[in-house]
Amino acid sequence: MTMRFDHRHLLGIEPLRPDEITTLLDLADQYAALNRRRDKHAQALAGLTQINMFFENSTRTQASFELAGKRLGADVMNMSMQASSIKKGETLIDTALTLNAMHPDLLVVRHPHSGAVDLLAQKVHCAVLNAGDGRHEHPTQALLDALTIRRAKGRLHRLTIAICGDVAHSRVARSNLLLLHKMENRIRLVGPATLMPAGIDEFGAEVYQDMREGLKDADVVMMLRLQKERMDGGFIPSEREYYHRYGLDAEKLSFAKDDAIVMHPGPMNRGVEIDGTIADDINRSVIQDQVEMGVAVRMAAMDLLSRNLRARPTEVVT
Amino acid sequence: MTMRFDHRHLLGIEPLRPDEITTLLDLADQYAALNRRRDKHAQALAGLTQINMFFENSTRTQASFELAGKRLGADVMNMSMQASSIKKGETLIDTALTLNAMHPDLLVVRHPHSGAVDLLAQKVHCAVLNAGDGRHEHPTQALLDALTIRRAKGRLHRLTIAICGDVAHSRVARSNLLLLHKMENRIRLVGPATLMPAGIDEFGAEVYQDMREGLKDADVVMMLRLQKERMDGGFIPSEREYYHRYGLDAEKLSFAKDDAIVMHPGPMNRGVEIDGTIADDINRSVIQDQVEMGVAVRMAAMDLLSRNLRARPTEVVT
Amino acid sequence: MTMRFDHRHLLGIEPLRPDEITTLLDLADQYAALNRRRDKHAQALAGLTQINMFFENSTRTQASFELAGKRLGADVMNMSMQASSIKKGETLIDTALTLNAMHPDLLVVRHPHSGAVDLLAQKVHCAVLNAGDGRHEHPTQALLDALTIRRAKGRLHRLTIAICGDVAHSRVARSNLLLLHKMENRIRLVGPATLMPAGIDEFGAEVYQDMREGLKDADVVMMLRLQKERMDGGFIPSEREYYHRYGLDAEKLSFAKDDAIVMHPGPMNRGVEIDGTIADDINRSVIQDQVEMGVAVRMAAMDLLSRNLRARPTEVVT
Repeated sequence: MTMRFDHRHLLGIEPLRPDEITTLLDLADQYAALNRRRDKHAQALAGLTQINMFFENSTRTQASFELAGKRLGADVMNMSMQASSIKKGETLIDTALTLNAMHPDLLVVRHPHSGAVDLLAQKVHCAVLNAGDGRHEHPTQALLDALTIRRAKGRLHRLTIAICGDVAHSRVARSNLLLLHKMENRIRLVGPATLMPAGIDEFGAEVYQDMREGLKDADVVMMLRLQKERMDGGFIPSEREYYHRYGLDAEKLSFAKDDAIVMHPGPMNRGVEIDGTIADDINRSVIQDQVEMGVAVRMAAMDLLSRNLRARPTEVVT
Repeated sequence: MTMRFDHRHLLGIEPLRPDEITTLLDLADQYAALNRRRDKHAQALAGLTQINMFFENSTRTQASFELAGKRLGADVMNMSMQASSIKKGETLIDTALTLNAMHPDLLVVRHPHSGAVDLLAQKVHCAVLNAGDGRHEHPTQALLDALTIRRAKGRLHRLTIAICGDVAHSRVARSNLLLLHKMENRIRLVGPATLMPAGIDEFGAEVYQDMREGLKDADVVMMLRLQKERMDGGFIPSEREYYHRYGLDAEKLSFAKDDAIVMHPGPMNRGVEIDGTIADDINRSVIQDQVEMGVAVRMAAMDLLSRNLRARPTEVVT
Repeated sequence: MTMRFDHRHLLGIEPLRPDEITTLLDLADQYAALNRRRDKHAQALAGLTQINMFFENSTRTQASFELAGKRLGADVMNMSMQASSIKKGETLIDTALTLNAMHPDLLVVRHPHSGAVDLLAQKVHCAVLNAGDGRHEHPTQALLDALTIRRAKGRLHRLTIAICGDVAHSRVARSNLLLLHKMENRIRLVGPATLMPAGIDEFGAEVYQDMREGLKDADVVMMLRLQKERMDGGFIPSEREYYHRYGLDAEKLSFAKDDAIVMHPGPMNRGVEIDGTIADDINRSVIQDQVEMGVAVRMAAMDLLSRNLRARPTEVVT
C-alpha cells in the first residue's frame, strides 16, 4: 500500500496535511469494519510495546486506546501516573527517560498541561500519541469526529459546522477547528463571550453568541462538554442558565438543517449541554458513532506510526 | 459438540435449566484440568474482546474473570468504574451505550444495585455476565459452588445443604438457593431471624435459627460472609456474639455428617463466621477448591456464551 | 542449553551462587538485545500465568515486571492489594492460598514487611519472585545493577564500589552488598552513622562517613534513595543539610576514578541525593541503563524459573 503519513508522532492536528488526514480516515474505515466482526483481532502491532501514560484520569479515552492496541496485537501496558511517581516528586522528564529506557514503541500520553506531550516526545525514541494535553490539542478526538462526519454526511468538506459551548477551555474544539479548517469547511463557534478564546478568528471561523443564529442551516452541530475543572477562578455559569441559553434542545436544533447531525465528545451532562431526548435520537445523534470511530481511528493512527517506526533504521532505537 | 446452553447472557441462575447447569459444569471440569497444567493457554475466546466493568470493588472476582478470559485468548480490558465516569455524572445507560459502541463481545459487570446488570444487558449487543448485582444474583459463584460440591460429593442432587449466616443480604445465598433447588437438594437456611429474608420458604427451604439443629446430618455446610456494608441502618450483630451463636467451630460442625464439607465464598473473617482451624482443615474445608473452580466455571460460561455469539448472524452486531 | 540455576524461587541474592548470577546475567544480555529490536515479543513464558501482587505501590518496578512477562508471552495480571483485600481483613496467608488456587506459574510480590515474601513462597506451588520486601531484599534490583556495571566496566569483579546514603533503610543496598561481595568486589558503605546499619562489616565492607574518602578511586558510585517512608520515628535529616554532606555533586565525584560510573535506583530526588547535572551526564550516569537492564534481568529471571517449573513433575502442581 502506498500510504503517505510523514510523521514520527501524532502530537496534534496542526502539522497534518489534508491528504494525510484522508489516508488516516481511510484506514480507520477499514478498522471500523474489522471492529464490527466477531473475530476482531489483527496483527499490525504484533511484537510492539504500547504504553498508555495518563497523568489525568480518562476512563473512556484510555479504554479506547487500550482496546485499539490489544486488537492490533501489541503488548499494552497502562500506567496511571497520578498517584505514584508524581507523589514521589519525579519530574516529567525523568519519567519520560525512565519509560524510554523500557523501549516502548508507542507511547500514548494525556497530561493536564498544554505542551507537556510535545516536550515529552522530544525526549523519547518511540512514537508518541497525544491523548489530550491541557487546552492545547486532542488530535484523535478531532480525527474520530471527522470520520463520524464523513460517514454520516458522505464528505468532509464544504460543510457548515457549528461548534457550541465552552470553546475557550476545550482542546477538542481547538483540534476540531484546525482539522475542519484544513478540510475546507465553514466553521462557526457558538457560545457566551466569556467562554470564547481571544484571537480565534484567525482560522476564519465565524463567532456567534446566539445559538439560533449560529445553528442556522448548519450540517453538523457539535456540542462541547462544560470543562468546569479547567475554569480556574474565571466565570462559571449556572447550569440552569447555561442550558437555557446554550443547551441543545429541539427548538434550537430546528434552526439547523433538517438532516443536521448532533455530536458530543462525552461524557455528557444531560440537561446542561444537551437535552437527553436529542442525545438519544438515533436519527440525529451520532454520539455513539463517535465512540465507535474512536477505537478505529486510534487503530489507524497507531498502525501508520508503527509503519514509520519499522521503516526507520534500528540504530535510532538504541 | 452438542452442548445446549440457550442463553445470550448469564444474568442469574433463575433462567437456567438443570441440563444447562450440567452442561456448564461438565465443560468447567475440563477447564479445571487445563488450569492444572503448566501450559494453560487456550484459544476458545481468541479474537474476542472481554471488558470487565466493576462498579463495586472485588479483587478476587475480577481476577478470576480476568484470568479466565486471558487463558482463553480473549483481549481483556478492566474498567474500574468507581472513580472516573460516575464522578463525572454519567448515567449507567450512557456508560452502557458507550461501552457497546466499542464492540465488546463479553461484558462482565458487577454493580451495587440489584437489577442494574439486567438493565444494562438490554442496552448492549454483546453477551453480559453478571458478576454480582446488589442482593440479587451472583450466578458464577453459585456455579462454582455447585462444581465444588459435585467434585467433593460425586453428585449434585439429594444432598442436605445448610446455608448459614447472613442470608438476607447475600446474593451468594440467593443464587445458591436457586441452583441447589433446581438440582433437587434439600436446603436449610440457618441464621438469626434478623438476617433471614422474608418469603424465603417459597423455594422449599427449611429455616433454622439454631446452628446445631440446622447442621444436623448435613452433607454440605456453606458459610456466608457477614455483609456489613449492605446492612444499611439495620441490625448489626457484635462479632463476638455472632461467632458464639453462628460462627462455625468444631463443636457445631460435629452435628453435620462425618464427611460433610465446609464452604465459604471468601474473603473470610476468621473468628467471626468461621474458626480458622476448620477453614484450614484440608479434610473438611473446600474453600480453596471454590477459588480454583471459580476460574474454571468462568471459562466455561464465557466459552458457552461465545459459541452462541458466534452462531448469531453478524448483522445483529452492527 | 546447559544453564544451571537451581532454584524454585527468586527470594533474594543470598542463596545464589556466583555461577548462577553469571548465568542469569548472560541470559539477560540476550534479552537486552531483544528489547532494542522493534519486534520484541518472544514465547519463553507462553502458556504460563504471571500474577504481580503489589502490597506496596511501585509504578516502575511493577511496570518492569509487567513488560517482561508480556514480552515473553505470559498471561499477565496485576493485583493491587493495598485497598481491596487488606481492607476486608484478609490475612496474607489467605491471600496467598487464594491466589495459589488460581494456579499462577509465576508470582511477583512486593510487600512492606521483611520476610513476608518468603513466608508466602512456602504456601504456594508456583515460582515466587521477590520484588522487594521491607528492608530485607530486592534481588532483581541488585541483578540489574550488576548487569549495568558489567556492561559499563567490562567485568563484575575486583571493582571498588561505593554505596552511598541511606544504607540502613535500603533493601537495594542489602541485596547489592550481598551480590557484589559474592562476585569479589571491594565494597564501601558511605553515609551518616545514623543511616548505617549495625553489623554491616560482616560482609567485609568498609564504612565511611565522609563522601570524599569513601569515593576515593571508586569505579562505581551507587547512590541510594532517601527512604523517608521507612524512617519511622528515627532521625530524618534536612534535605539541604543532607545534600551538602552526602548529595553527589561534581566536586565530590572528582574524588572517584575518572571513568567512574554513577548509579541510582530511581526515582531520584534531584538536589537531595544527587545533582541533576550529574544524573543527566551520559558520560558518567548509567541511570537509564539501569532501567533498561531491569526489564532484561526480569525476563531472564522469569525465564530461568519457568524452565525449572516445566522440568518439575506436574503432580506437584495439583
